[in-house]
Amino acid sequence: MSDVKKVVLAYSGGLDTSVILKWLQTTYGCEVVTFTADLGQGEELEPARKKAELLGIKPENIYIEDLRETFVKDFVFPMFRANALYEGFYLLGTSIARPLIAQRQIEIAKATGADAVAHGATGKGNDQVRFELGYYALKPDIKVIAPWREWDLTSRTRLIAFAEEHQIPIAKDKRGEAPFSVDANLLHISAEGKVLEDPWQEAEEYVYSRTVAPEQAPDKPTYVEVEFERGDAVAVDGKRMSPATLLTELNRLGGANGIGRLDLLEGRFVGMKSRGIYETPGGTILYVAHRGIEQITLDRGAMHLKDELMPRYAELIYNGFWFSPERKMLQAAIDQSQGPVTGTVRLKLYKGSVSVVGRKSPNSLYSLEHVTFEEDSVYDQRDAQGFIKLNALRLRLLNRQQS
Amino acid sequence: MSDVKKVVLAYSGGLDTSVILKWLQTTYGCEVVTFTADLGQGEELEPARKKAELLGIKPENIYIEDLRETFVKDFVFPMFRANALYEGFYLLGTSIARPLIAQRQIEIAKATGADAVAHGATGKGNDQVRFELGYYALKPDIKVIAPWREWDLTSRTRLIAFAEEHQIPIAKDKRGEAPFSVDANLLHISAEGKVLEDPWQEAEEYVYSRTVAPEQAPDKPTYVEVEFERGDAVAVDGKRMSPATLLTELNRLGGANGIGRLDLLEGRFVGMKSRGIYETPGGTILYVAHRGIEQITLDRGAMHLKDELMPRYAELIYNGFWFSPERKMLQAAIDQSQGPVTGTVRLKLYKGSVSVVGRKSPNSLYSLEHVTFEEDSVYDQRDAQGFIKLNALRLRLLNRQQS
Amino acid sequence: MSDVKKVVLAYSGGLDTSVILKWLQTTYGCEVVTFTADLGQGEELEPARKKAELLGIKPENIYIEDLRETFVKDFVFPMFRANALYEGFYLLGTSIARPLIAQRQIEIAKATGADAVAHGATGKGNDQVRFELGYYALKPDIKVIAPWREWDLTSRTRLIAFAEEHQIPIAKDKRGEAPFSVDANLLHISAEGKVLEDPWQEAEEYVYSRTVAPEQAPDKPTYVEVEFERGDAVAVDGKRMSPATLLTELNRLGGANGIGRLDLLEGRFVGMKSRGIYETPGGTILYVAHRGIEQITLDRGAMHLKDELMPRYAELIYNGFWFSPERKMLQAAIDQSQGPVTGTVRLKLYKGSVSVVGRKSPNSLYSLEHVTFEEDSVYDQRDAQGFIKLNALRLRLLNRQQS
Amino acid sequence: MSDVKKVVLAYSGGLDTSVILKWLQTTYGCEVVTFTADLGQGEELEPARKKAELLGIKPENIYIEDLRETFVKDFVFPMFRANALYEGFYLLGTSIARPLIAQRQIEIAKATGADAVAHGATGKGNDQVRFELGYYALKPDIKVIAPWREWDLTSRTRLIAFAEEHQIPIAKDKRGEAPFSVDANLLHISAEGKVLEDPWQEAEEYVYSRTVAPEQAPDKPTYVEVEFERGDAVAVDGKRMSPATLLTELNRLGGANGIGRLDLLEGRFVGMKSRGIYETPGGTILYVAHRGIEQITLDRGAMHLKDELMPRYAELIYNGFWFSPERKMLQAAIDQSQGPVTGTVRLKLYKGSVSVVGRKSPNSLYSLEHVTFEEDSVYDQRDAQGFIKLNALRLRLLNRQQS
Repeated sequence: MSDVKKVVLAYSGGLDTSVILKWLQTTYGCEVVTFTADLGQGEELEPARKKAELLGIKPENIYIEDLRETFVKDFVFPMFRANALYEGFYLLGTSIARPLIAQRQIEIAKATGADAVAHGATGKGNDQVRFELGYYALKPDIKVIAPWREWDLTSRTRLIAFAEEHQIPIAKDKRGEAPFSVDANLLHISAEGKVLEDPWQEAEEYVYSRTVAPEQAPDKPTYVEVEFERGDAVAVDGKRMSPATLLTELNRLGGANGIGRLDLLEGRFVGMKSRGIYETPGGTILYVAHRGIEQITLDRGAMHLKDELMPRYAELIYNGFWFSPERKMLQAAIDQSQGPVTGTVRLKLYKGSVSVVGRKSPNSLYSLEHVTFEEDSVYDQRDAQGFIKLNALRLRLLNRQQS
Repeated sequence: MSDVKKVVLAYSGGLDTSVILKWLQTTYGCEVVTFTADLGQGEELEPARKKAELLGIKPENIYIEDLRETFVKDFVFPMFRANALYEGFYLLGTSIARPLIAQRQIEIAKATGADAVAHGATGKGNDQVRFELGYYALKPDIKVIAPWREWDLTSRTRLIAFAEEHQIPIAKDKRGEAPFSVDANLLHISAEGKVLEDPWQEAEEYVYSRTVAPEQAPDKPTYVEVEFERGDAVAVDGKRMSPATLLTELNRLGGANGIGRLDLLEGRFVGMKSRGIYETPGGTILYVAHRGIEQITLDRGAMHLKDELMPRYAELIYNGFWFSPERKMLQAAIDQSQGPVTGTVRLKLYKGSVSVVGRKSPNSLYSLEHVTFEEDSVYDQRDAQGFIKLNALRLRLLNRQQS
Repeated sequence: MSDVKKVVLAYSGGLDTSVILKWLQTTYGCEVVTFTADLGQGEELEPARKKAELLGIKPENIYIEDLRETFVKDFVFPMFRANALYEGFYLLGTSIARPLIAQRQIEIAKATGADAVAHGATGKGNDQVRFELGYYALKPDIKVIAPWREWDLTSRTRLIAFAEEHQIPIAKDKRGEAPFSVDANLLHISAEGKVLEDPWQEAEEYVYSRTVAPEQAPDKPTYVEVEFERGDAVAVDGKRMSPATLLTELNRLGGANGIGRLDLLEGRFVGMKSRGIYETPGGTILYVAHRGIEQITLDRGAMHLKDELMPRYAELIYNGFWFSPERKMLQAAIDQSQGPVTGTVRLKLYKGSVSVVGRKSPNSLYSLEHVTFEEDSVYDQRDAQGFIKLNALRLRLLNRQQS
Repeated sequence: MSDVKKVVLAYSGGLDTSVILKWLQTTYGCEVVTFTADLGQGEELEPARKKAELLGIKPENIYIEDLRETFVKDFVFPMFRANALYEGFYLLGTSIARPLIAQRQIEIAKATGADAVAHGATGKGNDQVRFELGYYALKPDIKVIAPWREWDLTSRTRLIAFAEEHQIPIAKDKRGEAPFSVDANLLHISAEGKVLEDPWQEAEEYVYSRTVAPEQAPDKPTYVEVEFERGDAVAVDGKRMSPATLLTELNRLGGANGIGRLDLLEGRFVGMKSRGIYETPGGTILYVAHRGIEQITLDRGAMHLKDELMPRYAELIYNGFWFSPERKMLQAAIDQSQGPVTGTVRLKLYKGSVSVVGRKSPNSLYSLEHVTFEEDSVYDQRDAQGFIKLNALRLRLLNRQQS
């Protein structure tokens, strides 16, 4: 069917990617290298190793890695410097993980001399694009295998049949159709499809797994302080933490207070609309906190420019263009602005909402002597007249034009 | 001091603008026309008439108007079509009222043959800019009097003394300093200054007047359905309402559920940062609802362009450029997009948060047959390969460049 | 091979589309409707009719139309209101013609009950995208046939062989390979490929057909006055003309003076770079003239916003998204600005360059009394101090932050 | 009149700034430090020293510096990386020089312990803003003296009278009114005011001083090759040159060929429109050359983002915000893109026009094997179908909505 010799598969250890693994072996007759990463999805990795071995993967071809710190430090944090929201709400939890997986797959392909990579994303979604744009950007001559676009295992029944035929173990709860599809990492967990496909129907409580319902959250607010240095969070309630530890702690706080649930109908890059249920408890806190610290440290000119650039930046990440030159250009602009973004934000978490209630910074641009209602000696109110009159000049000339 | 003959004053009937009224009479020796508008600030207007009469204003020079419907229909709704947020959070409740007041002042100036207008905004804030850019845009030769930038009544003591000297009645609770400064209309109420000047200090509960504390809101969520036609809300829970009635109803719902509180440190147009506490209960619901209906009716290309234009649009309104050609250009683009934005959004209100839980529309772009996880006959998954490969082509060529 | 019953072919009457015509008949066994339009490419249309008849097309299936006025009025002029330049230079001469052709093909498909459309663009270029996005936008269920992506006539030899086999007349000068590929309409003529493929090699003089070489242009400058109304050109040297007549006249003037040649290496939507030689004599004059009239009639705020939106607008047209909602949004913004763009521009044409040397308008925003070096009574220079001080305030606060 | 002790004056040695010098001494009774810089305006600096001495300035208070290399390397080149054009045409020749002068004045103020700075720009123009925003950004507590906004020497007669009264030497040709006002540096020379104030009247030939009239330029074209490294020009016709030397050489070539003349009616930051005649011979070549080298080395995504950011960047420089954080953010984005912008551009200069006729680069993104009309083995034309179909999907869904 092709001349693929060795393929690096993004392998979760679950049924679907196990079927893919076997399908690659049988269809392409090629050697398979499995790559399983801990991005904070909350699953043990060792079972994936066992399963790969069981499916005949040589030990030296099994790559299992904990990438949580890299994920948060080099992908999540840079993105949060931008206050990135896709279509007004979505914190891009799935989108931002794909480039890292793609990057590691390519690195492993280079290390193992593999000539192909494969992933388990379908032909309708955004993830195939994100994976493959990453692959091609990093190794233009790589062969890409997307089994869901190629094979005929297009129903659950056929998939199960293939698994049984090839002695792939099937967990009892995986025999039937899952009620919806899930993706998870340290930043978020998403659910979509099946029972969620009617966008008028509220998602049921059992869809949520990372947050308590706001109604079940504590009756008293929780206050938390997040500390930032140069745009990145470094401490929670005075305790310095590594990036992944910090996000884990914010997830715990957000999850306990019902924070970060989102029901979104969004426009996919491939052209159709889809509905997703997202839980981003720690990320939601981080977003609000970062906005809070920028309020007191970031100049208006920088902030407004960031706000104008943000939708494009978010779109680029959503569409899979993390490795594009334009994403890097925007990142350079954003990072350039973050030098003074240092200080502490105080937040109130309560039954589903998070809000800034205080902020302070050694780099504060807030000048009480300028803003005070009391008399001051630094601001001459008469300057305002000239300011207004020259800002108005063009409008006055325009009026003359219109009449 | 000048040759001002007749001045139209934006007059609330309160102590400050009464002092201004008298100060204009005594300083400029000119005739004063008072203009008092109901924009939903929640105060009776008739006392303002009485007070104006008491201060010697001729009946024909007293203008009192209910502008609530105009305010919502021609200013608030167009702005909400844009999903306008200033610096990520602020729904521009004060900003959007100023152009309407300025416009009516100028219309009255033209009708009464007045050669000047006056307002009660200070020399440090944004409102002076918003008023005066409106004045100049609509009548370039108008004289503008901004007493707070001119006079020497710069302390409360002096102001009270002036009032006493000129027999201006002073309500008992107005003798002392107010703990903070307030602005209100149907869209929002704001508080700033004095006790709020330390941005690290959480605002106390007594600062809030239009919303209950989330902690005091009902323990059960409230569900509400908002219906839109061509981008504007037209009904709540199936009941058609006029714009102002609708916003009033959303205020009631939002207020009762603790929705729409905001503690913001923001960059003023005049250059300094200030801290405001805003309550926009109905507006917050409306913002989320409008985003919700756009999700299902607005094409991705249109939505993303709107998102990119929005920060500029919000900045223009915040800075007072409602009457500028560039605001009108952006409005034309936004309005152009809203044709299909018709349908119903279902929202959950609960203890301070509002979220979309369902949306439906006769113009729905959501296509279950395209997005379904089931097999379909409208989407060929193999198209995705070509889509990705051509999107990747430039990235592949770039890689070659770098190596 | 398929169930296509009737196909509307964009038919030039040339060899390539004649081969396509025959190939559609033989491959799909379907009825062919030919559509031949005069967009100002400078060729007779009647030979196309004869050739279509010769190839067996029924008279009622032969559509021949003069679309020059529509082309200029509804496509070229709206685009020129935007001052659209792709990648800094390209006036989009080919791009802007495609949507009109696609639109007419679909209208004819609807009128004749055809279920498919076909075009003669290759699989590597932008034109296939522009045609097909137009088709799909206007009739989503249309079948699209792109022979160059499907057939095996991939060399000149095979194409000629197919033509001979099917008795398609071959003009003598079409037997060999053309030295480059050409596209022409009233706005421009382009050349690309073959002898032009080395981007370091200057294009030879014989490549150009619509302009004299600057070196051969008259030794004396030509002055021309272009008059605009609401953003569109309406007269040349005082003589009112229809849109197409006017552009024809500007082509004559520009061509005689060597104006509008462009050697461009550009980024195609499909991902690779290509090199084109463009001649846009009248369009180049029109671009400069429109900029000139905007200088004196358009407010700075409007102009700068237009300039910021322009690259996106140009990209949308280049990429084929004329019928997208975002192009329409941008058009609405642009058109909104053009109300006052009325007046006359005086231009100097000389050996390859065109420049504004004068402009006047009944809507002039140029105010001599404001700008004069003499004393004036309308501008108070002291206002500048307040203007500068408040514009500087945030920079001053920033300096304090940095130190 | 004030407590100014020592002021650093931007001093040209001409009559106007000499009058300012004396006026500062007599009005403020303060010590004056003169700062005279060679930015390539083409005047000897030593006469300025003599004149300053004559007017009583102590030798240690006379600063005379050759800033040409700094000007081109740190201001002109970064700006040209952005392809900055203000309002479509203006290469910002005056604007870009002001921040450097302001910066040196502040450095000298710090070195000499001066508490004030002064400049000779009028109260109507942009230069006052550019100077003063620079001053305030770099030293927020500086006192700024703008004599033209303060004094009463508002007519030529009074100015001459003041000069005579204070024994300031007056060159014979400076007695009368100059026919227009001039600003010059290595990048450009500008003329405005007086005889140029009628924007319908073509500027006379005597206004131009740095370029020959196109009609007087050589009858044969000149070809020149400009070489770039990482976005900056480094060599002309194979000869490496320092930045200022290179720009001088391009000025020579451009001037001799009548290149870089511009008659512009532009929108000033202070609100009115003005007309300027600019000559930027070398800059015009550099602009076209930089665009040319970007064509072959810069990815489409990067280039289009640059094009969208450019108008804002140009506006910031025009308005005097060189030292703002948003200009630095945009610069970071632009600079990020320039890594691969290395190679050689071949240009044709002929009687007023400059055009790219060839470009080559070791980082070329132009791939003949992809773009060729011949058969290739790297591009699968069938990919285009999927690419188009998924790009069209949203447009197809939209059509369904509309019908």
